[in-house]
Amino acid sequence: MVQTIDQRAINTVRVLAADVVRGANSGHPGAPMGCAPMAHVLFNKFITVNPKNPKFVNRDRFVLSNGHGCALLYIYLHLLGFDVSMDDLKQFRQVGSKTPGHPEAHDTPGVEVTTGPLGQGISNAVGLAAAEAHLAATYNRPGFELFNNYTYTIVGDGCLQEGVAAEAVSLAGHWKLGKLIALYDDNKITIDGDTAVSFTEDVVERFKSYGWHTLTVADGDNDVDALEKAIEEAKAVTDKPTIIKVKTTIGYGSLLQGEEKVHGAPLSADDIKQVKEKFGFNPDEQYVVPKEVYELYGARAAHGAAAEAEWNALFAKYSEAHPQEAAELSRRLAGKLPENWQAALPRFTPADPAVATRKLSEGVLTALADAVPELLGGSADLTGSNLTRWKKAVDFQHPSTGLGDYSGRYFRYGVREHAMFAIMNGLASYGVGIIPYAGTFLNFLTYGWGAARLSALSQLRVLYVMTHDSIGLGEDGPTHQPIETLTLTRATPNMLTFRPADGNEVSGTYLVALENAHRPSVIALSRQGLPQLEGSSIEAVTKGAYVLQDAENAKVVLVATGSEVSLAVEAAKLLAAENIPARVVSMPCSELFDEQPAEYRKSVLPANLPAVSIEALGAYSWQKYAHAQVGMTSFGASGPAGQLYKKFGITAENTAAKAKAVIAHYQQVGYVPELGIEF
Amino acid sequence: MVQTIDQRAINTVRVLAADVVRGANSGHPGAPMGCAPMAHVLFNKFITVNPKNPKFVNRDRFVLSNGHGCALLYIYLHLLGFDVSMDDLKQFRQVGSKTPGHPEAHDTPGVEVTTGPLGQGISNAVGLAAAEAHLAATYNRPGFELFNNYTYTIVGDGCLQEGVAAEAVSLAGHWKLGKLIALYDDNKITIDGDTAVSFTEDVVERFKSYGWHTLTVADGDNDVDALEKAIEEAKAVTDKPTIIKVKTTIGYGSLLQGEEKVHGAPLSADDIKQVKEKFGFNPDEQYVVPKEVYELYGARAAHGAAAEAEWNALFAKYSEAHPQEAAELSRRLAGKLPENWQAALPRFTPADPAVATRKLSEGVLTALADAVPELLGGSADLTGSNLTRWKKAVDFQHPSTGLGDYSGRYFRYGVREHAMFAIMNGLASYGVGIIPYAGTFLNFLTYGWGAARLSALSQLRVLYVMTHDSIGLGEDGPTHQPIETLTLTRATPNMLTFRPADGNEVSGTYLVALENAHRPSVIALSRQGLPQLEGSSIEAVTKGAYVLQDAENAKVVLVATGSEVSLAVEAAKLLAAENIPARVVSMPCSELFDEQPAEYRKSVLPANLPAVSIEALGAYSWQKYAHAQVGMTSFGASGPAGQLYKKFGITAENTAAKAKAVIAHYQQVGYVPELGIEF
Repeated sequence: MVQTIDQRAINTVRVLAADVVRGANSGHPGAPMGCAPMAHVLFNKFITVNPKNPKFVNRDRFVLSNGHGCALLYIYLHLLGFDVSMDDLKQFRQVGSKTPGHPEAHDTPGVEVTTGPLGQGISNAVGLAAAEAHLAATYNRPGFELFNNYTYTIVGDGCLQEGVAAEAVSLAGHWKLGKLIALYDDNKITIDGDTAVSFTEDVVERFKSYGWHTLTVADGDNDVDALEKAIEEAKAVTDKPTIIKVKTTIGYGSLLQGEEKVHGAPLSADDIKQVKEKFGFNPDEQYVVPKEVYELYGARAAHGAAAEAEWNALFAKYSEAHPQEAAELSRRLAGKLPENWQAALPRFTPADPAVATRKLSEGVLTALADAVPELLGGSADLTGSNLTRWKKAVDFQHPSTGLGDYSGRYFRYGVREHAMFAIMNGLASYGVGIIPYAGTFLNFLTYGWGAARLSALSQLRVLYVMTHDSIGLGEDGPTHQPIETLTLTRATPNMLTFRPADGNEVSGTYLVALENAHRPSVIALSRQGLPQLEGSSIEAVTKGAYVLQDAENAKVVLVATGSEVSLAVEAAKLLAAENIPARVVSMPCSELFDEQPAEYRKSVLPANLPAVSIEALGAYSWQKYAHAQVGMTSFGASGPAGQLYKKFGITAENTAAKAKAVIAHYQQVGYVPELGIEF
Repeated sequence: MVQTIDQRAINTVRVLAADVVRGANSGHPGAPMGCAPMAHVLFNKFITVNPKNPKFVNRDRFVLSNGHGCALLYIYLHLLGFDVSMDDLKQFRQVGSKTPGHPEAHDTPGVEVTTGPLGQGISNAVGLAAAEAHLAATYNRPGFELFNNYTYTIVGDGCLQEGVAAEAVSLAGHWKLGKLIALYDDNKITIDGDTAVSFTEDVVERFKSYGWHTLTVADGDNDVDALEKAIEEAKAVTDKPTIIKVKTTIGYGSLLQGEEKVHGAPLSADDIKQVKEKFGFNPDEQYVVPKEVYELYGARAAHGAAAEAEWNALFAKYSEAHPQEAAELSRRLAGKLPENWQAALPRFTPADPAVATRKLSEGVLTALADAVPELLGGSADLTGSNLTRWKKAVDFQHPSTGLGDYSGRYFRYGVREHAMFAIMNGLASYGVGIIPYAGTFLNFLTYGWGAARLSALSQLRVLYVMTHDSIGLGEDGPTHQPIETLTLTRATPNMLTFRPADGNEVSGTYLVALENAHRPSVIALSRQGLPQLEGSSIEAVTKGAYVLQDAENAKVVLVATGSEVSLAVEAAKLLAAENIPARVVSMPCSELFDEQPAEYRKSVLPANLPAVSIEALGAYSWQKYAHAQVGMTSFGASGPAGQLYKKFGITAENTAAKAKAVIAHYQQVGYVPELGIEF
């Protein structure tokens, strides 16, 4: 059998993918075998990466949006010489391997973003492409094209059915991200069978309606030239993202090719045998890569290494020509925040007026706008409500719109929460220190939870600026009032949940959020005004919880967050009037509190004192810190905020009454049970 | 000023909307004033409803997808004579009123679905239209068109930017729902300003790509005839849903018309004055409806009442011609389940083989397929994994596809979780006893939480069949393994969370889920096989938790759910071998347990016994029931399930060790603290 080197390489990947999935006895051979030609053309002829330095900043980004086909990605990383060995491929889907069941950015060198949940990858890709556009506009200078990489993504039918992807690609079209190129694996098969059962829209026309350039490759199983030409054409279109519809056969080569059965289960031994014979491989050998295929990819890797060397030389010259920009960029590349940036954080005293924490957040963002140029803000069409935009901000827009330019740092995401979060993950994943933040109402955090949990899992510093954080939002009613939301964020690993009570705590929140480079922060902010508290400080927030106001011989602890801390202070006064000394603890971030030494925790919440929590949200998550809870046990209601607090019993009076009941109960039983014991 | 009666009616609504929003001193006047003409044409010339019986089964359904414009809807309900008085309008956005800040189906007669969170309404409308198509195909007979209502929806730019809407309208196009008609309020304004900042796609072309019929009305502010003709044309197209793009001016009549400032805040007193003058109303009067406008709408209401009378007569004849169908329909209309339907639920003994609970769920659904014809199933393209389809099921498809027909009861939702949930809300809201259920992996429940929480808030019986419910799913890894998900569902009011442990508990789960007509159920099911337990029963599930296996003089309670109950049983054996008697409690539904009398609860979890929980999910929600927890404190990992359980310490050995530690600790301190005390 005479095969071109391209065919040989493609068939190598198909055969190896079948072996890898079979080795794990679980996984998805269909997509790797079907997508091998387009991936070969991409990785061998277009993508510039340096396997010896997977973090080379101007590398092309590749996102496998249909992450279940990750055997494909791992194989290409292996061929290119990333730190993914044949032994790693043999450990596919095993505990602790570099080759998990879906791509995870922090597990595998060369994997840009964590994909698997469908629709996320292509949305991340929009963020990656936006990051390139932004950095190019910010740092490139005539003769110094520091940033000009492409973002490529392979997407399947599944990704294109997801709403998050629809939101993101609409924005990509709006933003005219010309360096974003998507290859659509149009294999007409999903898990439920032929796409005819549920997916009959005209995808190409849809992308046209979003402002994308569209192309079609009729024979994606074999026509390497057509694939190459299509990608060339896509690169030539500079003011539109491009989608290339590539017609493929799922599981190409398998006896089951073109059927859903080849999607998500290993090929049989007999099937693999005939695949190997068909493609000119020894059916008795496994995990084989011909020498000439390694060489072919070795050459591409060398090209990438040379590209980085050129970039480094260019940057050295840039440092002379533009020392200020170079210094800033160097700092960002080193993963450092600007020196002394914290000095910009506003501080408050109790004499300062009552202000909503969303407004205080606006003050912080305004203060940081100049101090931290890597902050990129935005909102899902609630800018005036979330107060996420500093006054002098420039919008991130294509310059032709006259509404901003790519150097702009404020993103108008439209009413697209899920894509906003996924795009932020892409922005943060690009590197160069980008810190994305964006706003919506807290209740709509869960519109995009699919992406938010990936911020946590992928260890990305993404700031969720979530305003209107309780029944305190008032008249908009229960469809907008979060009850369960912070229980969710607190239950999520590697995610910080903040609910600051006043100006100092808002500043402290941003202090911690920015300094935690490997986890996202959810910042819950009030719509209503809150007083500046006696006893609060920026630094106290770093401990998660602290004694805001103490009382000698306290009989009870009142622990509260955000808008209810001032209620706790009031309740303590009511109790004091009845000669019941009460300590008030503010707990802006329970996760940080849990990380403190036991000694500190016990100094704040003593084992022998009963505690009552107050939070105008579901009380569900407070069993851990308080013996009794004041909170919501139902959905909220529509009405003025003050009336709602009364209606639902979230008042100083009710808190004081509950405190007395708790004190009395434990006096009667003779002990106060210690909470939060770890066994 | 000479106005036609149509103009007079439209202007009445505009003026009244300004008054109503001003009266609340909060709300959205822009959409009501801009949408008044299209709403007038709809409500006065097309929609058939009987205000005296808002539940008339063959009524046209109307959904205000841009729910923030609800003043509009309340005003039309008032004009038509629904139980929404002028005093109710004056109570707009007040606590306990019939006119909350966003439409809530259970608060206001005539409101079909709860909208406000953008994108939900139009997706519900797809479900409502699908319900009509299904019931027509199921019950209509020649000469007896019992079901032939239209579903109308008004949508704004915000709704059309949301991914959930994109998913839903793609399905509506696929399903060729000809009786679904959407009026798109194209006012070019969102909260952030001109849609040019973020929404520049070609909406009409996009809907064409989905297979919708599209129309445009150039002057939606004034051209009543064009609106009428467009809706007529839409009705004439029977095999495609129609979207009518109606160009309008937000806040038409206000000094701020066409600006975002008129979107979400009351008009000033001066502005309202000039609006009234402009439209020929007395600027000194408020809340005015001219007599002729009431009469006009009174006539439309009479038409609706007559339509119901005709329908009742038709149904009487139908009952003679088709007694069996009529009896079933009558039963469903009365809100009753089939007599003795529970007898179909499978029962198991410990001698039965180990089976995954997703497989046991398939058995229940197969058993109920004939017994409960109002069950409508589906999956988000995971049918073979969720096992949600009984073998003989017919797919819900347009008959022209050759893949099923509208009488089919199995919905192929594609990879569109959020729309699936929102469409289920629509199906359930139609009435006629429809019980929708559908599957995806538990982790992807949060892809559609925006809709799932509305199932709870709207008190809808929707069944979420969520398989692959823990790290037990194995190799797919942490992107697919829920950690925080059930903490969320358990923290959500009016929602039941089930995690059954074996066959009897799966049957019991469906028993409760079907009998709870006013709340949704999330059913978490294992991928892996689980043994049939000694001590389980269908009936026990109704109590939420029960003593599965007891031990005399038990020293500790092991409380577990789902796949970990058998681990608890093993752990009890390990403890027994060390002469530590342990009770095993299975807790398939903590919410139901909380609803039991204190006496029962204490009989299961005695106040003086330490308890250890075991669940292969985040331990966060277990503080309430157990002194110590065995569970996840991080994200999961990719690997074979058995190895993951070991890696994360979710084992019988670890449980036994923790039990001993807890016993020892409380022996030392001299008491066991009582949990779950309500203060």
